[in-house]
Amino acid sequence: MNTDILVSEVGPRDGLQSIAAIMPLAAKKAWIDAEAAAGVREIEVGSFVPAKLLPQLADTAELVAHALTIPGLTVAVLVPNARGAEAAMAAGAHKLTLPLSVSETHSLANLRRTHDQVIAEARAIADMVRAQPKANRPHFEGSLSTVFGCTLEGAIPDAQIARLAASLMDAGCDEVGLSDTTGYADPAAVKRMIALVRNVVGDAALTGIHLHNTRGLGLANVLAALDAGLTTIDSSLGGIGGCPFAPGASGNIVTEDLVFMLQSMGLRTGIDLNALLAVRDIVKDALPGEPLYGFTPDAGLPLGFVPETASKEYA
Amino acid sequence: MNTDILVSEVGPRDGLQSIAAIMPLAAKKAWIDAEAAAGVREIEVGSFVPAKLLPQLADTAELVAHALTIPGLTVAVLVPNARGAEAAMAAGAHKLTLPLSVSETHSLANLRRTHDQVIAEARAIADMVRAQPKANRPHFEGSLSTVFGCTLEGAIPDAQIARLAASLMDAGCDEVGLSDTTGYADPAAVKRMIALVRNVVGDAALTGIHLHNTRGLGLANVLAALDAGLTTIDSSLGGIGGCPFAPGASGNIVTEDLVFMLQSMGLRTGIDLNALLAVRDIVKDALPGEPLYGFTPDAGLPLGFVPETASKEYA
Repeated sequence: MNTDILVSEVGPRDGLQSIAAIMPLAAKKAWIDAEAAAGVREIEVGSFVPAKLLPQLADTAELVAHALTIPGLTVAVLVPNARGAEAAMAAGAHKLTLPLSVSETHSLANLRRTHDQVIAEARAIADMVRAQPKANRPHFEGSLSTVFGCTLEGAIPDAQIARLAASLMDAGCDEVGLSDTTGYADPAAVKRMIALVRNVVGDAALTGIHLHNTRGLGLANVLAALDAGLTTIDSSLGGIGGCPFAPGASGNIVTEDLVFMLQSMGLRTGIDLNALLAVRDIVKDALPGEPLYGFTPDAGLPLGFVPETASKEYA
Repeated sequence: MNTDILVSEVGPRDGLQSIAAIMPLAAKKAWIDAEAAAGVREIEVGSFVPAKLLPQLADTAELVAHALTIPGLTVAVLVPNARGAEAAMAAGAHKLTLPLSVSETHSLANLRRTHDQVIAEARAIADMVRAQPKANRPHFEGSLSTVFGCTLEGAIPDAQIARLAASLMDAGCDEVGLSDTTGYADPAAVKRMIALVRNVVGDAALTGIHLHNTRGLGLANVLAALDAGLTTIDSSLGGIGGCPFAPGASGNIVTEDLVFMLQSMGLRTGIDLNALLAVRDIVKDALPGEPLYGFTPDAGLPLGFVPETASKEYA
């Protein structure tokens, strides 16, 4: 298990895209500022999708510009295709994530693209990235979504997952990620899937995982991923973004509980947990009526628990 | 990791003692019947404490008598002292658990007994157990509570925990258990504590753990315990029993989510998960207004998930 863990905050993207309310730009900026000040080193600030599809994320370019002014912060965005990647690169994002649903049914339903079409977009994006001077190149990740099973197709064959992971790397991705879009993962599946994909792409090209807490297994699945040596874990402040498959249940892993677990285990996140907990107020005020999740915020920190202080050494 | 896991339901004891409402005896019987029919092989049905202290559990002797009529079910009870153990043995319980808080401050506050006094009770109980003909002897466990930290004392020194584990075995316990009374545990601490106590009592005398979900780490902590080779995991249906330290948060691990995790991982519980989920209705109807917890009940089972069927092979 590695001792330095990168907590990648996805609330401003994955969280906000899942709820109907539109958070004002100023509140988003305040959220990102406060979380970065608490020591969070990577934030997915939005998605370059057409505003008519996701009006909640229409201000992504402005958010990228703002987040780029924060020293040491990796500014990540989701891009659904080459056009989105072009906009993301124009805005100056540090990291682009292209989702590829290993379930083709889900890919067609969500992105209206076949696997071959998504791989073609990946190739086009990789070409754009490589056309940049080296110092300006964003990191480009292809994220294998529905990799633990799909609500439409159920389990996806290993061979199909392996083939798609290889195709993303062939297309020019720097890395692939794993995403439990449906909340189907369990700790054994997490370890098995990491081994399967590593076998195709190599250890260095699989470092991160995006897990949901749909069936309450989120942090157990994180533990399995840490045991397998992954170092980047996605999560959402307050678990923002209810899961459409489980009304009232949080989709995303709660950043506060994740950071509490990591620090309890003696792992280093560089995050000031008390400062992180205080960020909830910003999100709560900006999304009236929207539930925030998390156990640690209610329970408080254990007596004698010594949280990390935000550290610049990781920046 | 062992593949056969014993899920020990503690809701009728730990759950009900934590809430003000008193569940009618008939509903408790229906709950126990339905859970046993779903394949749960061990249920802690109550506690032999004075009825004036815990009126919610005043019918424990009647429940033991009822539960003993269910073939294959291990009928467990909590006993705070030798007097309680005498009543438990008269009722015919299969398993007695005596809690010993490794924090002496907590022990005094909760049981109004010093460590030496609790060890003396353990010795008196063990003597009673051994005075029985072998076929009638209950299994006697000493449970090390607040072992992951105390809300009054904070962390408890390893040497003190090791000494108390040894004292319980010396007093004549068949086994010791670990209990995260305060919800302070994390996966690293679980592994460390299992190693520490095993080193004192041996592998065979530490098989079970009682974990809480106070800070959301419950199932991650279970995973750590499974990795370390433990085979008995306590949990409570619907996570019944709110945590006094975390209003609105569940204290106990939710049986439904635990069983879903275990079965997802390919471990065997002998439990029919769909039948288990249906038991919630009994508890819900019998405790109007009391919240039930759990993610899996809301989210449902993944497409293509094949739950175990209740098996008698474990009985």
